[in-house]
Amino acid sequence: MTEWKNLDQLDAYHVLLKMKGKVSLPQVMAGESGAQRVKKYSVPMAAGMMYNYAAKEVDGELLEKLADLAKEAGLTQKYADLYNGEMINTGEKRLVLHQLTRGQLGDPVIADGVNKREFYVAQQQKIAAFAQKVHAGEITNAAGEKFTTVVQIGIGGSDLGPRAMYLALENWAKKNGTFRMEAKFISNVDPDDAAAVLNAVDVAHTLFILVSKSGTTLETLTNESFVKEALKKKGLDASRHMVAVTSETSPLAKSSDYLAAFFMDDYIGGRFSSTSAVGGAVLSLAFGPEIFERFLEGAAAEDRLAANEELTENPAMLDALIGVYERNVQGYQATAVLPYSQALSRFPAHLQQADMESNGKSVNRFGESVNYKTGPALFGEPGTNGQHSFYQLLHQGTDIIPLQFIGFRNSQIGTDTDIQGSTSQQKLCANVAAQIIAFACGKDDADKNKKFEGGRPSSIIIGDQLTPESLGALLSHFENKIMFQGFLWNVNSFDQEGVQLGKVLAKRVLAHETDGALKELSDLLNI
Amino acid sequence: MTEWKNLDQLDAYHVLLKMKGKVSLPQVMAGESGAQRVKKYSVPMAAGMMYNYAAKEVDGELLEKLADLAKEAGLTQKYADLYNGEMINTGEKRLVLHQLTRGQLGDPVIADGVNKREFYVAQQQKIAAFAQKVHAGEITNAAGEKFTTVVQIGIGGSDLGPRAMYLALENWAKKNGTFRMEAKFISNVDPDDAAAVLNAVDVAHTLFILVSKSGTTLETLTNESFVKEALKKKGLDASRHMVAVTSETSPLAKSSDYLAAFFMDDYIGGRFSSTSAVGGAVLSLAFGPEIFERFLEGAAAEDRLAANEELTENPAMLDALIGVYERNVQGYQATAVLPYSQALSRFPAHLQQADMESNGKSVNRFGESVNYKTGPALFGEPGTNGQHSFYQLLHQGTDIIPLQFIGFRNSQIGTDTDIQGSTSQQKLCANVAAQIIAFACGKDDADKNKKFEGGRPSSIIIGDQLTPESLGALLSHFENKIMFQGFLWNVNSFDQEGVQLGKVLAKRVLAHETDGALKELSDLLNI
Repeated sequence: MTEWKNLDQLDAYHVLLKMKGKVSLPQVMAGESGAQRVKKYSVPMAAGMMYNYAAKEVDGELLEKLADLAKEAGLTQKYADLYNGEMINTGEKRLVLHQLTRGQLGDPVIADGVNKREFYVAQQQKIAAFAQKVHAGEITNAAGEKFTTVVQIGIGGSDLGPRAMYLALENWAKKNGTFRMEAKFISNVDPDDAAAVLNAVDVAHTLFILVSKSGTTLETLTNESFVKEALKKKGLDASRHMVAVTSETSPLAKSSDYLAAFFMDDYIGGRFSSTSAVGGAVLSLAFGPEIFERFLEGAAAEDRLAANEELTENPAMLDALIGVYERNVQGYQATAVLPYSQALSRFPAHLQQADMESNGKSVNRFGESVNYKTGPALFGEPGTNGQHSFYQLLHQGTDIIPLQFIGFRNSQIGTDTDIQGSTSQQKLCANVAAQIIAFACGKDDADKNKKFEGGRPSSIIIGDQLTPESLGALLSHFENKIMFQGFLWNVNSFDQEGVQLGKVLAKRVLAHETDGALKELSDLLNI
Repeated sequence: MTEWKNLDQLDAYHVLLKMKGKVSLPQVMAGESGAQRVKKYSVPMAAGMMYNYAAKEVDGELLEKLADLAKEAGLTQKYADLYNGEMINTGEKRLVLHQLTRGQLGDPVIADGVNKREFYVAQQQKIAAFAQKVHAGEITNAAGEKFTTVVQIGIGGSDLGPRAMYLALENWAKKNGTFRMEAKFISNVDPDDAAAVLNAVDVAHTLFILVSKSGTTLETLTNESFVKEALKKKGLDASRHMVAVTSETSPLAKSSDYLAAFFMDDYIGGRFSSTSAVGGAVLSLAFGPEIFERFLEGAAAEDRLAANEELTENPAMLDALIGVYERNVQGYQATAVLPYSQALSRFPAHLQQADMESNGKSVNRFGESVNYKTGPALFGEPGTNGQHSFYQLLHQGTDIIPLQFIGFRNSQIGTDTDIQGSTSQQKLCANVAAQIIAFACGKDDADKNKKFEGGRPSSIIIGDQLTPESLGALLSHFENKIMFQGFLWNVNSFDQEGVQLGKVLAKRVLAHETDGALKELSDLLNI
């Protein structure tokens, strides 16, 4: 029987609390010691990647204590409970099965009377067959012409993850001859979002994917109507241009408004839905189902690594534990994700949702307030761009913000130029290596304005190239890190009650049922 | 004579320190008190906008003490010193003249033997004449064909600000018939950035703007070579496709490689350069010089408001002071910028640089360490998207993060749809109003998981529509807020020494002059 305890009820945590400030990065990362750490503090990931934590504030003893904490918290046991189908999302009384969309880790999971792995595979196959027919010109618009563009209508998890994944693979697919259709995304209820996308596409040759698990998301239904009106104005039959991704019980599931419907279910949280039909439809249409499958394989391989009980062979669990040490022992309040890859430009925005919506909680799984910090604020931009933006504060500001770098040895497109004896890709990689050392070691200077204190921890995930497999592994790594941190903080990482109040009040505004400050604000905004 | 003192040397600051937690938002924002606050705590801005701070943790007494602090710190006097041409950037020994690019606030500023206002106006006029010739087909490619696209090559301030401004006005310009040329941006040294942009444009009809103040920025020069090679491969003469924006003393200034060169100078920091030639060239080419001029007028009008000594009539100074109260008295560590406008999708990324690079410092103007927190981490995404992403943590996380909302009564494109009795624009506005109240007031619930503590402060800038004028005013507001906060923290907001160490180490990596951890990391990345 798995025990769920608050972080501060665990003995190993109290041991860790006494180890605040134990490791001085400027010391341990200098000279031969630093070289040894880079070699030693590295864990293999899937798709040939590695998680290197040499520049994190840990040492052998601290790692032992983190391993004790992992064991005492039963992290891998809880993960096994999750993938074996226990009701981990206690708030909403739901299983948590996003890992099952990409592979079978444990026992068969039977829910709602079906084998859920078979259900997810069936949806994936249904999408694959549909995508192939679209690509082959067997499913066309009413005039019998091929669709050239796909537009996803969705918000939150139906937007951020799929959009980040699409952007991550767009150039790779173009380079590798698997680019099938351009994808665009409509998310915001701001009418200018939908209007601008519709102005930018050839509507007559566009297939729209409506994504809403419940079939009731206000923004998404509004944007669907927006799109339907635009299709109608052009004399087009909307039902020939739309598919739905939803749950089988939603009002969209059996509507004749759609060419086809692909299903997810209540066990897939929006922010964890990139490997379900939510990501599957748009990515299979854009790049071909075989590319989506490779993406799933990368994620599945990384999911298997997350089951390792040995801390230093489990990159997601290790990353999670170091993060909790940084948050709860060292007292750092934010974290930055810095991919040295333009293709990952929206990956930090996806992680911002995945992480902050999962672990930005103040009550534990039993509805009791916790007495420690939970999820940090997360932000990030690609390097080297960030270097010319907010890195000033990261290097010399008054707060320490732990950093997660991501780097690849090779670019996706492969076009490059040699300037001053090095290629752009080499310059990119040189910069990320240099930043890790600059943050860790700092530099003394008689002029304090030019002095760098160092002691700013970072880790780096290194891969050969951003491919479907490595992207899948990256996604899984962070999803599982978030899951393990939720276990440690003893919060329910899979609900989001904090988004409800705003929705309720917005409805009141639209119904003109307000008073006090809300009425005054509504008046100022001419609602 | 202006005195520069640390924040903790000011009496008014110590008075404020005793006022921690003075105002309870759930109390004061309830009922009639809340309604009165919304009406009362509002300051007019330029372009018909307003800064409303009803949901900030202030009251009459606290505002008086903030006014005392403003006076004791001599904020408006320091601003006057700045625009009258004193050497405010003491680190680099430079004047700070970005406000002068859009208007003359005080005395004529003579530097380098010229009247700087006249210099900036002359550059603006030179750009205007050039842009008009491009639009009229008088300046063309070698085949005599019109340019249809403009691509800006620059990084940091040469990218983030101009890109955010372009995106902010793109749809407005299309709607209002002033859209002249599509603009794209190349920034990252990642070769996939330049390659993807070049693959997406019609290179033969593209004009490139190379932006580098010093003419030595590694990323930008590398990307210039990248572009020149691409032009050459297509048999095109690069010098017929490129203009430069640089300083008069840079190697680019008089090169025959460019069709034209437009000048900025050392008194315009990169992150404050959107209203100089750096923003001027791309925005004038994209939308026409008359639109760029309207953008400058909005900024100039807001700059004038920032000179008001009366705190409650100076929105930038008030915003700055409330921010310092939140950072140094209340102890909040981050801030989020949340525009309810898809057109402002990259405005938070621009502010991230403007704010974090300016005030992410640990030493004062005299090179002495300060004993208080300076600039916070800043992040943001447009609403309503953010609501479905990280708002969970903002509502129910263990840290309080102050919020800056921005909202407009009208959309830019004007296409809209009425669903369930309201338009999308009304839904958008209803959501931002609702969020302010939800964050401030919270909601009790027997189920703690559904309980909202409230007490999460926000302000909102409300405008009629995002236009060139209101965008200029918005930009100026935040630039001046950052300036006032820098004055209060007594840091030099106009240098960025924290970006140097990484550059130095990256050069060493590329020269293979490394050892220890840096060598090992370089090996892992195959450099």
